[in-house]
Amino acid sequence: MALSIGVDVGGTKIAAGVVDEDGTVLATARRDSPATSREAIFTTIADVANELAAQYDVETIGVGAAGFTSSDRNTMVYGTNLDWTGARIADEIASRTGKKVVVENDANAAGWAEARFGGGKGAKNVLVVTLGTGVGGAVIIDGRLVRGAAGFAAEIGHINVVPDGRPCGCGQRGCLERYGSGTALGVNGWELAKFRPDYAARIIELSGGDQNKISGKAVTAAAREGDPAALECYARLGGALGLGLADLCAVLDPEVIVLTGGLTEAGDILLDPVRKSFNEHLTAHAHRPEIPVVISSSGQEAGLIGAADLARQD
Amino acid sequence: MALSIGVDVGGTKIAAGVVDEDGTVLATARRDSPATSREAIFTTIADVANELAAQYDVETIGVGAAGFTSSDRNTMVYGTNLDWTGARIADEIASRTGKKVVVENDANAAGWAEARFGGGKGAKNVLVVTLGTGVGGAVIIDGRLVRGAAGFAAEIGHINVVPDGRPCGCGQRGCLERYGSGTALGVNGWELAKFRPDYAARIIELSGGDQNKISGKAVTAAAREGDPAALECYARLGGALGLGLADLCAVLDPEVIVLTGGLTEAGDILLDPVRKSFNEHLTAHAHRPEIPVVISSSGQEAGLIGAADLARQD
Amino acid sequence: MALSIGVDVGGTKIAAGVVDEDGTVLATARRDSPATSREAIFTTIADVANELAAQYDVETIGVGAAGFTSSDRNTMVYGTNLDWTGARIADEIASRTGKKVVVENDANAAGWAEARFGGGKGAKNVLVVTLGTGVGGAVIIDGRLVRGAAGFAAEIGHINVVPDGRPCGCGQRGCLERYGSGTALGVNGWELAKFRPDYAARIIELSGGDQNKISGKAVTAAAREGDPAALECYARLGGALGLGLADLCAVLDPEVIVLTGGLTEAGDILLDPVRKSFNEHLTAHAHRPEIPVVISSSGQEAGLIGAADLARQD
Amino acid sequence: MALSIGVDVGGTKIAAGVVDEDGTVLATARRDSPATSREAIFTTIADVANELAAQYDVETIGVGAAGFTSSDRNTMVYGTNLDWTGARIADEIASRTGKKVVVENDANAAGWAEARFGGGKGAKNVLVVTLGTGVGGAVIIDGRLVRGAAGFAAEIGHINVVPDGRPCGCGQRGCLERYGSGTALGVNGWELAKFRPDYAARIIELSGGDQNKISGKAVTAAAREGDPAALECYARLGGALGLGLADLCAVLDPEVIVLTGGLTEAGDILLDPVRKSFNEHLTAHAHRPEIPVVISSSGQEAGLIGAADLARQD
Repeated sequence: MALSIGVDVGGTKIAAGVVDEDGTVLATARRDSPATSREAIFTTIADVANELAAQYDVETIGVGAAGFTSSDRNTMVYGTNLDWTGARIADEIASRTGKKVVVENDANAAGWAEARFGGGKGAKNVLVVTLGTGVGGAVIIDGRLVRGAAGFAAEIGHINVVPDGRPCGCGQRGCLERYGSGTALGVNGWELAKFRPDYAARIIELSGGDQNKISGKAVTAAAREGDPAALECYARLGGALGLGLADLCAVLDPEVIVLTGGLTEAGDILLDPVRKSFNEHLTAHAHRPEIPVVISSSGQEAGLIGAADLARQD
Repeated sequence: MALSIGVDVGGTKIAAGVVDEDGTVLATARRDSPATSREAIFTTIADVANELAAQYDVETIGVGAAGFTSSDRNTMVYGTNLDWTGARIADEIASRTGKKVVVENDANAAGWAEARFGGGKGAKNVLVVTLGTGVGGAVIIDGRLVRGAAGFAAEIGHINVVPDGRPCGCGQRGCLERYGSGTALGVNGWELAKFRPDYAARIIELSGGDQNKISGKAVTAAAREGDPAALECYARLGGALGLGLADLCAVLDPEVIVLTGGLTEAGDILLDPVRKSFNEHLTAHAHRPEIPVVISSSGQEAGLIGAADLARQD
Repeated sequence: MALSIGVDVGGTKIAAGVVDEDGTVLATARRDSPATSREAIFTTIADVANELAAQYDVETIGVGAAGFTSSDRNTMVYGTNLDWTGARIADEIASRTGKKVVVENDANAAGWAEARFGGGKGAKNVLVVTLGTGVGGAVIIDGRLVRGAAGFAAEIGHINVVPDGRPCGCGQRGCLERYGSGTALGVNGWELAKFRPDYAARIIELSGGDQNKISGKAVTAAAREGDPAALECYARLGGALGLGLADLCAVLDPEVIVLTGGLTEAGDILLDPVRKSFNEHLTAHAHRPEIPVVISSSGQEAGLIGAADLARQD
Repeated sequence: MALSIGVDVGGTKIAAGVVDEDGTVLATARRDSPATSREAIFTTIADVANELAAQYDVETIGVGAAGFTSSDRNTMVYGTNLDWTGARIADEIASRTGKKVVVENDANAAGWAEARFGGGKGAKNVLVVTLGTGVGGAVIIDGRLVRGAAGFAAEIGHINVVPDGRPCGCGQRGCLERYGSGTALGVNGWELAKFRPDYAARIIELSGGDQNKISGKAVTAAAREGDPAALECYARLGGALGLGLADLCAVLDPEVIVLTGGLTEAGDILLDPVRKSFNEHLTAHAHRPEIPVVISSSGQEAGLIGAADLARQD
């Protein structure tokens, strides 16, 4: 079977791995991410890939990175993280490695890994939702990743759930990401701490007494203890996410929704309010098969596994 | 080239046609829709198809009808119009005609025709939005129609645009269909007539003086004259539609949005407020290619053209 | 004790009565309302008042009518019903009767009667809310009727409860009157009938099968039978009213809220959802005395009783 | 003419002054606020009052403090600041000074000063709105302060302007105070800094580079420079305030709205968006006299001036 290399390019480090067709990582290698220049990044990516390629019989390389990638999977149309907007990344790495290379949005890559080898395994229509500092996603239809005409598809964190709500980096207000991410959970806690400090006392305490250090993690820790304020933060997050998922299902009708990302460590504290709101908001709920909402985590390596596997796809 | 028969099954009539690979209708035939029994409908569909098949060398038949169809394109999972929930329509017609038969959601079929031969011609990623009594749609990704795991995809009329808004037949409140359809336009006019009769005087007048007869058509007629109340009705409709389209583009990132259906006869009166709101609400608007919003109408035959062409697809 | 005459001037009839200081009506007289001219209306009002004044020792006359009245209680600043905007009504009637005359907004007059002799008896701070075709009100603070600087106070039907909601005759959208009146109840039913006819079947049936004839009364009749659609109409009405009343109490802090008007015939069907929403929305609920919400009806004569009694006040 | 002493009791200091009938402060005295016990506070209030009473011929003392005060102006029903819920403050101070004493809510007292001697001078119906860390107010009708049945009136910061919006210390969500106060202005800036840091760069810079130190003052400073993000913060604040003021005018119909408090130092930056939104939302706008919205500041001493003057009123 064909092996493939996946490279997950982050702001501070570059992680690569050799991935087989079952999604198993056979070997890994890492480098610090050089912030200096595009050239340095390309060299580092090629270097780490070549190191692995020297040990395994590999045909393809998939590079996952933050940003909008072109539909031919060559160019970073708009890089949201590193300064490589417009870079023909696949060509650059191909010329340095001699392999077939594709570049994919990192959230798409990680989502693909979840859909193929994680919570969506065996399903052909999967919605993967990554809940971390933002809300990202990957949409798989008929077994194929949806990238969109310009590589901008699956920006599910930017559907509107609150008219004229919290401002968003995308220029809009009220995006799902502003109400359904781990960051949003922290903001829910911050708001309660700011305006109802007595009620939010436990959340503040678990944040070292500093309202400005309230994070989603502190809210989750308080929620595990049954703290009413923290559970209210989760109820609101779940309400928004459930509404957003219901909208997505009206359009996509997946077999399964896979939640992943750091926020899913909360388990049922997250799932319960999400499922409740989702089922309340799902159109034609009584007339359709149930759409399960599950948590899955292929872990830190999902990004490189997905990038590797996508490089094997047409 | 392969010819295909399309059959558009409505509540009162059944229209069939022979369609070539360019989407041209070579011949048509019609029957009244027998409301009596499933058996009678199957017989009538087969009868009209056989009549055309006797004249042309046809290999496939596509049946378009209202309802959710199974992903194998055989069964009507939930028929919203005729009483044939659960019917294995494709098998029934195949056994009566000896052809390969598929059943498709009628909105999907008509949308497919628009995407392939109408406003979306040449594009591989198309969002077709049908604006009539309801808001329907078809989603084409990488040149393929999106049907969903259970055949329920592209129910774009049922994404939420107004939290806790007007009630919807789907069991929810605030669906796009309740604010963006021709029916919704009439309700916008009705509300103004009910609560601000002086302001809505021209709309009432164009409805024969009867507030209860206000329709989208009367509102459009008044809007063509520049009536402020009618233009307000359109501004609200366009606001809701633009928001809904922006949400859909965050997920699907199409090359083009094709508006079709009876409401599009309003032309720029419709397009102007829709485009304004769409551009205001589109995520990452400044960083992506423009997504044109166009009107196209393959006319009454779009349903049968699309059904015929879909029967030719794998 | 001083007797006073109250005159309730409606669009079709003029009702007058002699009222003692306990709010008891000692005698009444009626006329049809002449639609012809201001002069004819003044003459008719004076005529009916003089008829009563011939029988009782009366010093004052209070005229209640729809519209905004000046703070000196002489002029109809803006008449919403009859064509007498700008008319110096009190002077006109005084010159025809030789009595001291004041003109009051009819809702204020009826509300005053409820506050003094009905559900607010004995209280010095009362909020009276009239629920009929619209939502009107009267505000009594420290035993005095609040009229406002220009006679426009207590327009409680026009506080906002739904941002950008249903259009209102006042030029705004989302006014309490559009969600909390008997008319609104009918519109709630109409919306369900329009968009969910199966669900609203009993409401339609009780409206003679004609969706366009759905009124608040039909919804109430269905709600009495326990019809879920009708109860949903009431839940929404109660939700809006409760929110509006909570806003009003944040400003006014009354001892009691008296609901009156035709809609209150529904009794607990109305009161239950109103109280529920009111208590959920009342600011600082835990720290303040309970504010009772009661139904009271001084009946058809409340308008003339209140007008009569107000004429006795400074 | 009668002189009166006003005492403004804050969390950290107690300020007193002798006030004549024109609202002029003839002399002042101050103490630190003893946080130790009620007894200590009563003693300190009496002490500072007696010091002034020794120099001027004074008959009355008005004490202004945070919290809900009883309608007989004797008891602090619920103290939101100092620990004196239930204390019979007027009696306590009277027994220590030999004067007639009343206790008033501090916002009411300061608002009364603005209404009588500041921006509302000469008007009998005035709405005073204090914009600082919160949104407070005072309502004057027919020349009398409205206190409410239980002393809870004029809590105008707690009318709802955003359904299900930001949480509030009062237990509700979406209160005017959460969107219209100086604190809210800072939160508007914080949200932009959190989610759109590039856009909010100038606001962050003027906050010493620390997002957690963003205050209304930094936003105001940036707005003075024409910074678009800061002006957006003001546009949203003004939108909420204008809506809230329009609701209040529907009920109260004042001659003038006087804005006061720290936020009003922004001048037209504040006034422009408030007036715009107010005029857009005012019911029956076309049919009523214009209600001016003005800024006035009687300064730090407004609280003691108002308390002193209210002690002279019945």
